[in-house]
Amino acid sequence: MTSEISIRPLAPGDRSAWRSLWRDYLAFYETDLPDEIYELTFARYTDPARNDMLGWIAWQGGDAVGLVHVIVHAHGWKVAPVTYLQDLFTTPAARGKGVARALIETVYADADVAGRGAVYWLTQTDNTAARALYDRVAIATDFMKYSRS
Amino acid sequence: MTSEISIRPLAPGDRSAWRSLWRDYLAFYETDLPDEIYELTFARYTDPARNDMLGWIAWQGGDAVGLVHVIVHAHGWKVAPVTYLQDLFTTPAARGKGVARALIETVYADADVAGRGAVYWLTQTDNTAARALYDRVAIATDFMKYSRS
Amino acid sequence: MTSEISIRPLAPGDRSAWRSLWRDYLAFYETDLPDEIYELTFARYTDPARNDMLGWIAWQGGDAVGLVHVIVHAHGWKVAPVTYLQDLFTTPAARGKGVARALIETVYADADVAGRGAVYWLTQTDNTAARALYDRVAIATDFMKYSRS
Amino acid sequence: MTSEISIRPLAPGDRSAWRSLWRDYLAFYETDLPDEIYELTFARYTDPARNDMLGWIAWQGGDAVGLVHVIVHAHGWKVAPVTYLQDLFTTPAARGKGVARALIETVYADADVAGRGAVYWLTQTDNTAARALYDRVAIATDFMKYSRS
Repeated sequence: MTSEISIRPLAPGDRSAWRSLWRDYLAFYETDLPDEIYELTFARYTDPARNDMLGWIAWQGGDAVGLVHVIVHAHGWKVAPVTYLQDLFTTPAARGKGVARALIETVYADADVAGRGAVYWLTQTDNTAARALYDRVAIATDFMKYSRS
Repeated sequence: MTSEISIRPLAPGDRSAWRSLWRDYLAFYETDLPDEIYELTFARYTDPARNDMLGWIAWQGGDAVGLVHVIVHAHGWKVAPVTYLQDLFTTPAARGKGVARALIETVYADADVAGRGAVYWLTQTDNTAARALYDRVAIATDFMKYSRS
Repeated sequence: MTSEISIRPLAPGDRSAWRSLWRDYLAFYETDLPDEIYELTFARYTDPARNDMLGWIAWQGGDAVGLVHVIVHAHGWKVAPVTYLQDLFTTPAARGKGVARALIETVYADADVAGRGAVYWLTQTDNTAARALYDRVAIATDFMKYSRS
Repeated sequence: MTSEISIRPLAPGDRSAWRSLWRDYLAFYETDLPDEIYELTFARYTDPARNDMLGWIAWQGGDAVGLVHVIVHAHGWKVAPVTYLQDLFTTPAARGKGVARALIETVYADADVAGRGAVYWLTQTDNTAARALYDRVAIATDFMKYSRS
């Protein structure tokens, strides 16, 4: 018997749950970031007046089981801005239960309401586990990323 | 004998030169956009108070020979915003003369001055001509783009 | 017999009607502005993705009879941004018919929907005609403006 | 013998000094604000990537003796944004030593560097102590503020 998953916008009270999820997510990319970034990033994602940085957290019972972060930015080819899904994470224990898909669908729904329905993200080509999901909810393009350094 | 290349920020007087360059660029992607988008996009790139949409145009003698467009957006992992080089174009006649490289370096220099030196862009994996240049001025990552539709 | 007043957001097709209204408004303040500002300001107020500069125009039959411009900005004392009603104008022929009041109420309604219901504006203390209306729809404060120059 | 006044941009380490100054400033306006606003406002004024909310704090020896907060916003009559000096405070013990004037001049200098030199603020008409200073560094206009509520 499992409790239902509920997804809601990040709020100030989520600070410690969020830190833990984001740390695990960053560890997947062999990254950690200084405390100042945790503080700054959390303040940005939870500032109710910002509409360029948005986040949601998934709860199952009393456990925080996933998060998604979105960056909204202008686009030279479009009237409306676009929605860049920057971070997506589900805890190992909660995988295979549709949490990641539900988080992506939360982003899609919010993007539609806000009139910036063009959503995209980047993923490593060899991340087959993630791509198995992405191929069901989005389209793999032939665009790759170049980075100055 | 050729005249020197000069690169400067897009300005209201560049309207018709810019339209022609951007149209040719979009044609490379088998795209065209309605007139309203040309109007809106040009107004945005030439609004001196916007710092999230920036453009430069390259001139050689009396000819407009290239353009670059940049989108600046927030980043959840960084204090400073990042610089997304969205569009880069050189006219066929002006290729092989370093115009594209000079445009990228203009973006790099501007990004450094503005304190958002993390510059990136997306390109099609099979665009070998472009990638020959990109491999000299940037790093090819293993990130690919997924798009909602 | 008069036709009804309709108020709608400024759109690209309003360019010439808007220019004429705004010029007359500026003339009241013994100001005119160069053409570049007209171009830039109109482009800003009609960019559908901007949410910090908004405008509405009032039509009666085929005549443009009024306009209102709003600037949205952050506020250090509040979670939400605030709504600064910067410009309000009714053509002389249309005065006394509730156009100005309807424009203010349009701003109020939009501000409420957007969750930034704190609306304010500045007016000259001796503008008794305008103040007769303002005293009915808002509160005269004892704050005055200082300007660097 | 007194130590020199130094003014610098608000930074994360100023949190408790800032809270105390801002609380005293708000008390002058017979206002207090909930803790969430203190948190949110401090996070906004100290986010290095925001350019629409800026603050400075004045130190004398080990004492925080003043603060100034600035809101930057678009202006329909101008190419560049304008600089709204929203809050200005000096501790009672430090008055008469030029702290407030130095804070205003800091704002002027920053505004000039950023190309948005039009600085303004609002003050109560009967605040004679403040106005004695303001009349020396700025121009009293005949504009008064109306507020929706």
